[in-house]
Amino acid sequence: MERHFDEGLKALKERLLYMASLAEAMIHWAVQELMVRKAEMLSEVMAKEQEVNQIHIEIDDRCLKLIARHQPMAMDLRLITAAMKINSDLERIADQAVNIAQTTDFFLKEPKLEPLLEIPRMAELAQKMVRDSLDAFVKQDVDLARSVCTRDDEVDTFKHQAFNNLLTFMTKEPACIHRALDLILISRNLERIADHATNIAEDVIFMVLGKDIRHHIENRMGT
Amino acid sequence: MERHFDEGLKALKERLLYMASLAEAMIHWAVQELMVRKAEMLSEVMAKEQEVNQIHIEIDDRCLKLIARHQPMAMDLRLITAAMKINSDLERIADQAVNIAQTTDFFLKEPKLEPLLEIPRMAELAQKMVRDSLDAFVKQDVDLARSVCTRDDEVDTFKHQAFNNLLTFMTKEPACIHRALDLILISRNLERIADHATNIAEDVIFMVLGKDIRHHIENRMGT
Repeated sequence: MERHFDEGLKALKERLLYMASLAEAMIHWAVQELMVRKAEMLSEVMAKEQEVNQIHIEIDDRCLKLIARHQPMAMDLRLITAAMKINSDLERIADQAVNIAQTTDFFLKEPKLEPLLEIPRMAELAQKMVRDSLDAFVKQDVDLARSVCTRDDEVDTFKHQAFNNLLTFMTKEPACIHRALDLILISRNLERIADHATNIAEDVIFMVLGKDIRHHIENRMGT
Repeated sequence: MERHFDEGLKALKERLLYMASLAEAMIHWAVQELMVRKAEMLSEVMAKEQEVNQIHIEIDDRCLKLIARHQPMAMDLRLITAAMKINSDLERIADQAVNIAQTTDFFLKEPKLEPLLEIPRMAELAQKMVRDSLDAFVKQDVDLARSVCTRDDEVDTFKHQAFNNLLTFMTKEPACIHRALDLILISRNLERIADHATNIAEDVIFMVLGKDIRHHIENRMGT
C-alpha cells in the first residue's frame, strides 16, 4: 500500500512537471510569435492547449484517487491538495498563453511597431517564475518559492511602466492605438502568468511548512 | 464522528456562502463607484478584501482538517475539494473587484466620460453568475450550474463589443484615450469574474455528477 502511494505521488509530480513544461513552451511560442513576427506559432499554441486541458482533468483525477485510496495525512495531504491547486494555475497559465498568441495574431496583421518596450523582459521573467515555482514544488525548496513571490513585484513594476509608455505613445500616434492596446493587453496576460506562478510558490511554502503565508507579504521575505 | 463531519460540512458551506456574499458586495461597490461617480467606495472595497483574505485561509484550513479527520469518500470528498477550488476562485474574484475599484479611482479624477457602454450590463451579468454559481453549489443544482457556464459566452460577447466601441472612440477622441483604456481594463476584470464564476459552476457539476465537463463545451449544455 505504502509503495503504491509513493509510486502514485511520483507519477503525480511527473505529470505536473510535464504539464508545466507544456505551459512554459506555450508562453515561449506565444512571445516568440510576437518578437520574431512568426504568425504560424498560433496553431502550435492551440494544439498544446488541447493537451494541457486533457492533463488538467487527468491530474485532478489522480489527486482524488490518491486521497480516497490512501487517506494521506499532514504533509502528504498538503502535497496532494497543493498539486490540485498548481494544476488549476498551470491550466490558467496556458489560457493566458493562448490569449497572448491570439492578440499577437491580430497585432501581426498591422505594420510593424517598434519597440516592444518592457514586453520581452516581462515574458522572460514570467517564464522563469513558472519554471522556478515548479522546481520549488518538486524539490520542496522554500527559499526558491520565496524568491518567486519576490519577483512578482518586479513584473508589476514593468506592467506599470509598459502601461505609461504605451499610453504616451498612443496619445502621440493615434494611428497606432490598436497596436499599442494589443501590447497593453499582452502585458496584462504576462502579469497574470506571474501571478499564477506566485500562487504556485505560495502553495509550495504552505505544503512544506504547513504555514499559510498568503496575504502576508512581509512573511514572504522570510522575515 | 458522522455528526461532527456533517456539522463541519455545514459550517464549511456557510463560510463559503459568506465569502461569496463579500465578493459579490465588492463587485457591487466597485461598479457603483464607477456608475454613480462616488470615489469613497474604494476604501470599503479594500476593507472587505482584508476580510476575504482571512476567510480564504480559514476555509482552506477547514477543508484540510475535514479530509484529514474524516477521510471522506466519493461525493463528500469531491464536495470538499470543490470547496477548496471555489475558495480560490472567490478570492480571485475579490482581487478583480479591487482592481476595478482602483482603476475607477483614477477614472474619476478625469472629466466625466459617457456612456459607460456595455460595462453596467457586464457587471450585472457577472454578479449574477457569481451568486448563481454559489447557489448551485449549495443546492447541488446541476441545471443552474450549466446555465452559469452558458452565460460566460454572453459576457465574452459584451467584452468584444466594449473593446471595439472603445477603440473607435479612442481613435476619434485622442483626449479621452486614458479614460477609454480604463474602461477596457474594467471590462476585462468583469470578464475574469465571469470566468471564475464559470470555473465554480464547472466544479459544482463535477462534484454532483462525478463527471468532468471542463474543456468539453458541448457537454455543458447537457447534450
